[in-house]
Amino acid sequence: MNISVIGATGYAGAELMRILSSHKEVDIKHAISKSFAGQKMSDIYESFLACDYTLEALDIDAICADSDIVFTCLPHGTSADVVSRLYESKARVIDLSADFRYYDAALYEKWYNTKHGAKHLLEQSVYGMPELYREQIKGAKLIGVPGCYPTSAILALAPLLAAGLIESSGIIVDSKSGTTGAGRSTKLPLLFCEVDENFKAYGLATHRHTSEIEQELSIAADSEITLSFTPHLLPIKRGILSTIYANTTASEEQISKAYEVYNDEPFVQVVDGLPEIKHVAGSNNCAIGYKIDKRLNRIIIVSCIDNLIKGAAGQAVQNMNLMCGFDETEGLNQIGWYL
Amino acid sequence: MNISVIGATGYAGAELMRILSSHKEVDIKHAISKSFAGQKMSDIYESFLACDYTLEALDIDAICADSDIVFTCLPHGTSADVVSRLYESKARVIDLSADFRYYDAALYEKWYNTKHGAKHLLEQSVYGMPELYREQIKGAKLIGVPGCYPTSAILALAPLLAAGLIESSGIIVDSKSGTTGAGRSTKLPLLFCEVDENFKAYGLATHRHTSEIEQELSIAADSEITLSFTPHLLPIKRGILSTIYANTTASEEQISKAYEVYNDEPFVQVVDGLPEIKHVAGSNNCAIGYKIDKRLNRIIIVSCIDNLIKGAAGQAVQNMNLMCGFDETEGLNQIGWYL
Amino acid sequence: MNISVIGATGYAGAELMRILSSHKEVDIKHAISKSFAGQKMSDIYESFLACDYTLEALDIDAICADSDIVFTCLPHGTSADVVSRLYESKARVIDLSADFRYYDAALYEKWYNTKHGAKHLLEQSVYGMPELYREQIKGAKLIGVPGCYPTSAILALAPLLAAGLIESSGIIVDSKSGTTGAGRSTKLPLLFCEVDENFKAYGLATHRHTSEIEQELSIAADSEITLSFTPHLLPIKRGILSTIYANTTASEEQISKAYEVYNDEPFVQVVDGLPEIKHVAGSNNCAIGYKIDKRLNRIIIVSCIDNLIKGAAGQAVQNMNLMCGFDETEGLNQIGWYL
Amino acid sequence: MNISVIGATGYAGAELMRILSSHKEVDIKHAISKSFAGQKMSDIYESFLACDYTLEALDIDAICADSDIVFTCLPHGTSADVVSRLYESKARVIDLSADFRYYDAALYEKWYNTKHGAKHLLEQSVYGMPELYREQIKGAKLIGVPGCYPTSAILALAPLLAAGLIESSGIIVDSKSGTTGAGRSTKLPLLFCEVDENFKAYGLATHRHTSEIEQELSIAADSEITLSFTPHLLPIKRGILSTIYANTTASEEQISKAYEVYNDEPFVQVVDGLPEIKHVAGSNNCAIGYKIDKRLNRIIIVSCIDNLIKGAAGQAVQNMNLMCGFDETEGLNQIGWYL
Repeated sequence: MNISVIGATGYAGAELMRILSSHKEVDIKHAISKSFAGQKMSDIYESFLACDYTLEALDIDAICADSDIVFTCLPHGTSADVVSRLYESKARVIDLSADFRYYDAALYEKWYNTKHGAKHLLEQSVYGMPELYREQIKGAKLIGVPGCYPTSAILALAPLLAAGLIESSGIIVDSKSGTTGAGRSTKLPLLFCEVDENFKAYGLATHRHTSEIEQELSIAADSEITLSFTPHLLPIKRGILSTIYANTTASEEQISKAYEVYNDEPFVQVVDGLPEIKHVAGSNNCAIGYKIDKRLNRIIIVSCIDNLIKGAAGQAVQNMNLMCGFDETEGLNQIGWYL
Repeated sequence: MNISVIGATGYAGAELMRILSSHKEVDIKHAISKSFAGQKMSDIYESFLACDYTLEALDIDAICADSDIVFTCLPHGTSADVVSRLYESKARVIDLSADFRYYDAALYEKWYNTKHGAKHLLEQSVYGMPELYREQIKGAKLIGVPGCYPTSAILALAPLLAAGLIESSGIIVDSKSGTTGAGRSTKLPLLFCEVDENFKAYGLATHRHTSEIEQELSIAADSEITLSFTPHLLPIKRGILSTIYANTTASEEQISKAYEVYNDEPFVQVVDGLPEIKHVAGSNNCAIGYKIDKRLNRIIIVSCIDNLIKGAAGQAVQNMNLMCGFDETEGLNQIGWYL
Repeated sequence: MNISVIGATGYAGAELMRILSSHKEVDIKHAISKSFAGQKMSDIYESFLACDYTLEALDIDAICADSDIVFTCLPHGTSADVVSRLYESKARVIDLSADFRYYDAALYEKWYNTKHGAKHLLEQSVYGMPELYREQIKGAKLIGVPGCYPTSAILALAPLLAAGLIESSGIIVDSKSGTTGAGRSTKLPLLFCEVDENFKAYGLATHRHTSEIEQELSIAADSEITLSFTPHLLPIKRGILSTIYANTTASEEQISKAYEVYNDEPFVQVVDGLPEIKHVAGSNNCAIGYKIDKRLNRIIIVSCIDNLIKGAAGQAVQNMNLMCGFDETEGLNQIGWYL
Repeated sequence: MNISVIGATGYAGAELMRILSSHKEVDIKHAISKSFAGQKMSDIYESFLACDYTLEALDIDAICADSDIVFTCLPHGTSADVVSRLYESKARVIDLSADFRYYDAALYEKWYNTKHGAKHLLEQSVYGMPELYREQIKGAKLIGVPGCYPTSAILALAPLLAAGLIESSGIIVDSKSGTTGAGRSTKLPLLFCEVDENFKAYGLATHRHTSEIEQELSIAADSEITLSFTPHLLPIKRGILSTIYANTTASEEQISKAYEVYNDEPFVQVVDGLPEIKHVAGSNNCAIGYKIDKRLNRIIIVSCIDNLIKGAAGQAVQNMNLMCGFDETEGLNQIGWYL
């Protein structure tokens, strides 16, 4: 299968290139980088020194000519334009930006505070979370890969809302992410000496991922869900841990049963104890643990992913595997690093 | 003023020694370490190489003979016995364990799952948070220095509960602490390779500090407060950031007005933006910021302290300053490190 | 091919288990752990939650009965005994301790300050560095996998000494290693709060790896090499960077030509710039860069590896691949992590 | 004493502001920041929230009018111009750039590859290392504060060269620095995700500090010293550890005796073991340890400082204390942080 990657040198793009490099079913035809066209991938990420690629400028015709699948890893807003041109070709598109995650352009435009550049594609695109939309993904022409924070929150909450086990109001998602989530951007707050030994919250009550989480959980619950979502920046490279609070009078057995929807999922593990970031870093896994607080009629759920893998590049590849009829785990079944 | 430190070589004890070493009004008479008696402080913490102390075995009579103030930095449970003996002397005692923070021994015994060894002193002891109990502290013979997590949570919430601005139910305290909070203990989960690049929650729905926070907030609110408290372990050395959620319909002005109780406090700053751990690390400050989410009728408060200073040794010294009539900021007015 | 791992739960053993889990040619028959027999691998390293193993107590007969290759990851000293029993069976043994890296038991005994428990095997064992001993490895019954620091130093220096391009005296190897190199041991200096934001040298003039480096470089130079080796502990998990100084009047062309011995090596890259730890972390690669200082007639070489992979588990698997006639890169050709 | 700081918002400038804020003898009249004039110090470094300053644009006349001491924390090259104007006033100047550390403008121009803008002041300026030039500092009108790496290297080597105990050729200084040493500059290689879990060498055989180290050691040795200096970037914020190699046949006693020159120095400690960065971080101390390798006739010296304090701002204040007749340790005698 011939694939191309547009935006190969951001952090998510580079991680996608890394995963695709050892994927047995694909051949990388074009690795596109606006900033570094003409250079080698190993000039930008020296870890590619033993398996290199030449970066190209964007030439959509050339890409369309020989690509079956195109991954687009562009900033939101700019993605819509490129994707709408690719969409006209035979290629199927897997977009890692926020632009094709929404059903309702107005919702996107409100939270992203920008016009949507390709509204007509929103009803074609599929929200690329295999655990929720596996069948639709298989036949999709365009995928909007879920956001990193939403992946951790939705996988934890959707089964409980679908089963009617937690209250729809009062949900709080307190998430903490590694710094790769902020991208490879030369901004002062991302300097080592600013992040190291520090920890901070940001985007209180306004972070865009709130709307994405609410959209999918409202579908799961079949009623409107609104919730508090607070992201934080961890002084680590990879990983998201979301601590989630919801009011419930459900029993341990009921909760456990609701999570059985994941029994056959290759990349979701509901564990007995509490997951930690290092349990999933380097893998495509989402690990979920929880504790019911009978004293307060509340459940506290802890959900962990690697933001660059299950939260971005790995989930994108999982989508591709489904779309192309490959083994869903191909290229993704490595054990996490722990160390 | 002659002071002694019992338990000088744990992380809180060592920090206390560091602060006291540059305190102008005190003379350290005895630095007690069970494990390292006879050694020098600089054998255990080489940073003391330019200002050293000889560690001694515990001899309560010797301590009582020449100490005006005794700091006890012992594990909870063991502290009660030592403190009750010190209490008989002329010395005033500042205890950094949990043993003298409670009014009700039963509450302590339930959450700490152990017998209290000196119940008779509980009504003598003062909860050592100057912002709440300044006058009582001045005359106290025995202080229970507040816990680190409780300090961050109580300072953030007490004024709002006292003013009746937030709902008493539905409060959630999601706290993240640096690893010094776990003490200098050679346990596998505290190894560098286990903590580094990791993040985890622990003690869900059962952490002991829950009871301490609830005790003080119930007093502030003049009604029983129960809440969810979830601690997490950050891969940094120092600092606590608590993200706190409460339901409210109060206005910005009301909240701001309630926090004016801190206007003259030397060590609490209510800031316009959001505080980060590096804004307070190395200082005795508590920085508080907040955002009202009108969409959800909820306030999100972010409260930051240095767990070893305002959360332990610094607050202990602040208590001493009040008890001895020193300038309340003596030894504590250094600017945080940031770097 | 049936393989077994003795010592599967130390850091090197766990990394070996991780690599072997995705190796296409092998089947893990026995994963042995003295401390955790009966538990699951995922109880000890939760990253194995999606691909688990049951840990067993050591039963050498059982292992010999069905293992073609046995990896031994035991502390030096204790390894010799187990290996000598395995050696009697049909199994071929790949030992990750220091016990079978030496030709001369006296050298081992002097630097390790202990008796060697299986001297008779030293002349059977092959020093498992494929770049130096590929042919001998293929037919070996017993491999002593090189140490982590020695791998970084020997790969950098052997070609230059073999070509007579640098002086044999005056060589200095200043090495810096991530903390996994110290193993999963609950010692105070390995606690997070002791290692984080710190850096230190240790073992000056006495570290055991000095003798291993000198042994192999003396063979390469065909004359006795003695050198200064100083290890340091980095506040990171993985990776070694060695900065190496040697006196030389050789030209850039001569040095470059000497390093051409690595042109066909799959896991050694001589790069134009300077390698960094993140260029190789997560891979089996050794990246080497250098600068000739004409002013001082000295060459400075920088050599980087992942201490757990090329410095331990990966190199062990590379040896197995050669011994078993597999593709030498099987299980090892993943791109490093960078992030 | 009235002082001003030009360049108050770089990392060294901010550290200087922090130290001066608790210095009992000084009053900060002007804190100058080109980029942030008009803002508050706490807008840039929120740790100043409890002790704030208003940042001003550069007005040399205003500064000269009321400042006894002016600290200049500007990039090399730009410093010379400002300093030469200040030099005409009554103010005494303490410059933290490289511009006034050299006796010979040609040496500066060669290594810094730029014209020197105020050559006429070089013979007026004093190299601000109190351990070498205390008396000259007291009367100086202009100080060139030593570089961070040079401070660690010169303090370790000068006494041994002065005593003729080590060979003048063959010296190697392998230094490792925290990332604050690179300044607050928004460059890609300084991003958290690039520095974290990484380690690298840079500037091999060409780093400018080589010339500064050689200049001062040549004076100490009274013969020309050339040496290899290799800096490395540590994934920590603060601290430098230099591992230094020199050929010697001197005895332990001879070395120890040579270091007795530091017996009365308040900020240099020669220790029995090996110093680590955390032994000095947060303090103005330089800790030196060593080991003689009799096998190789070589001494290995380990020298540690906090690069922002003894390597920059602290040493600058130590100079001021001498120039103004204050206690040399005023504002600088705090114990390091360790944690």
